[in-house]
Amino acid sequence: MSEDAATRLLTGPVHVIGAGLLGTSIGLAASRAGLTVWLSDANAEHVRTAIGLGAGQHPPAGETAQLVVVAVPPLHIAEVVADSLAGGAVVTDVGSVKALPLDQVADRVDDAALRRYVGSHPMAGSERSGPLAGSAALFDGRPWAITPHVHADPAAVRLVEELVDLCGAVPVRLSPVEHDLAVARTSHLPHLLAVLAAGQLTDAVPEHLTLSGQGVRDVTRVAGGDPELYGQIIRGNRATVADLLREVRGQLDDLIAAVDDASGDALETILDRGVAGTQVIPGKHGRPALETGQVYVLVPDHPGELARLLVEIGEIGVNVEDLRIDHDPGRPSGLVELQVEAGAAERLRAALEDRNWTAHR
Amino acid sequence: MSEDAATRLLTGPVHVIGAGLLGTSIGLAASRAGLTVWLSDANAEHVRTAIGLGAGQHPPAGETAQLVVVAVPPLHIAEVVADSLAGGAVVTDVGSVKALPLDQVADRVDDAALRRYVGSHPMAGSERSGPLAGSAALFDGRPWAITPHVHADPAAVRLVEELVDLCGAVPVRLSPVEHDLAVARTSHLPHLLAVLAAGQLTDAVPEHLTLSGQGVRDVTRVAGGDPELYGQIIRGNRATVADLLREVRGQLDDLIAAVDDASGDALETILDRGVAGTQVIPGKHGRPALETGQVYVLVPDHPGELARLLVEIGEIGVNVEDLRIDHDPGRPSGLVELQVEAGAAERLRAALEDRNWTAHR
Repeated sequence: MSEDAATRLLTGPVHVIGAGLLGTSIGLAASRAGLTVWLSDANAEHVRTAIGLGAGQHPPAGETAQLVVVAVPPLHIAEVVADSLAGGAVVTDVGSVKALPLDQVADRVDDAALRRYVGSHPMAGSERSGPLAGSAALFDGRPWAITPHVHADPAAVRLVEELVDLCGAVPVRLSPVEHDLAVARTSHLPHLLAVLAAGQLTDAVPEHLTLSGQGVRDVTRVAGGDPELYGQIIRGNRATVADLLREVRGQLDDLIAAVDDASGDALETILDRGVAGTQVIPGKHGRPALETGQVYVLVPDHPGELARLLVEIGEIGVNVEDLRIDHDPGRPSGLVELQVEAGAAERLRAALEDRNWTAHR
Repeated sequence: MSEDAATRLLTGPVHVIGAGLLGTSIGLAASRAGLTVWLSDANAEHVRTAIGLGAGQHPPAGETAQLVVVAVPPLHIAEVVADSLAGGAVVTDVGSVKALPLDQVADRVDDAALRRYVGSHPMAGSERSGPLAGSAALFDGRPWAITPHVHADPAAVRLVEELVDLCGAVPVRLSPVEHDLAVARTSHLPHLLAVLAAGQLTDAVPEHLTLSGQGVRDVTRVAGGDPELYGQIIRGNRATVADLLREVRGQLDDLIAAVDDASGDALETILDRGVAGTQVIPGKHGRPALETGQVYVLVPDHPGELARLLVEIGEIGVNVEDLRIDHDPGRPSGLVELQVEAGAAERLRAALEDRNWTAHR
């Protein structure tokens, strides 16, 4: 997807509307690439902050941008996209759902203007928000869905692809409806099931919660996200999410029947399907999931000890695919779980024990 | 809970029945503490392996252990506990559910023998199983539930507490029924909801799965656990889990209605409850959850780079509370998410940028 500057269609100016986390980060990335970036936001303080960070400048009166990037909250996307199309620019937005805003835009503009609209959705974010959380590196290596409708102008699509490319993200082309089906399954449904699992904890007596392990922490983490934002996102994909939830309700009924049934193997069949689901998620760098092995190491919980461990693993010559620090409830040490290539796990464990670490698999 | 050797009631021998991951690890920990450990298992190869690792020795004929630890698969616990009580020892088991095995044992032994049975459940494990995965460090700092029934002999309870203590675990005293309610909420329900979320991925077209982010990986990870083992565990807590699942079905109905409803704030209320649930899980070392901030750093994906980052963070003097390597689909670098004390996050980000790391919040 990389384009030589000589053949690049995207020459700016880029007008970013909405100087929050995503808008400011796009402004920083486009500025880094040498493009002129204009910034606007209903909140003048956000614009000042983003400009102060080097994400762009105030839009000059009477000029038209080549590309407008709409990075406003979900409820305002369609209106801002439609207004921006009226100015003659190519317009994209970075909202989390794609079919509903497209319909809403189509209701507001003529067919010629609609050809210049190409929705998109970067799979990046942060639990923080606002321009101060922005970074030119936010999108590095992340998937960024590009969701042209069937009548979109190919040149407009290419312009958006170039934006994705200069932000360092990996473009994934999907139709708006496909996109919404995809995120319903890979994001909205897992989010809502995590919310139900987390919600059940609010009914627990505190003493029972001392038995919480890493599993429940992992399952429920995303449920900590901003309810107002997630509410808007899920409402924007309402029909698709509701269909999926109804499917899950049927599966929950099957699960209840399977748990009630003391004999039979219906429960194992359901659990098998869950295992299969964990195996279809693409692996690191989009490669097939690497078969990994775990090595657990006890690490004193103060600065420098984790570093010393990683230095020694580097000396041993094993690459760490993933690392997790297990929160232990009783003592000033952490159990670090290392994921390494399956074939290297035993060698790593033995080498760490030789170096006087307490390690096991 | 620490006992001086002089006042220690647990002097051995300890007879561990079941030389899998948990049994072998308990044998290793008790041997490390200087106790005589006997090992047995229906699988003679497992016993040989565990003995080879230093976890204990074959039980001598005609002698009686002071404490028997039953570490066999869930379906066989009650039978082995009852047989062990007949020998006159104090008996504990390390199964994942507690009320059903207690009832089953009570059906098999007289009241006097039952007083010597004290169930327990270490919150430790591994995706690996078998004696080779065993480690004396497996329980270090982990909660270990001790679940005496109302007629249990206090001296028997104390013996089991001493075992937990010498394994380095943190004892949590609960009744069998309370324990099962606790793990239904903190373990079995999150597991089953993760299974439903993961199961939905098996219906997705592969291209859609390229939009998978860290959220769905976290939510679904536990669903990769062994279906046969989890099937036995969940069946052992059948009534409690089924009751919770029925509650969740009601909440799922409310959620579907809230998603269907284009207006109103029922959805936000449900999402708010999820946020509250994530906040009641105890923090690291059992302290109240520490307010943490995130710093994201781009790290080249080869041995040594993560170590170099951690060394520099140590030099900067910030303690890493948690660390996560984000699997990125497109390039040979990883985005590392660092959790640090909220007040130190901005200082860490700035210091890392000064040292030429690409860091953001």
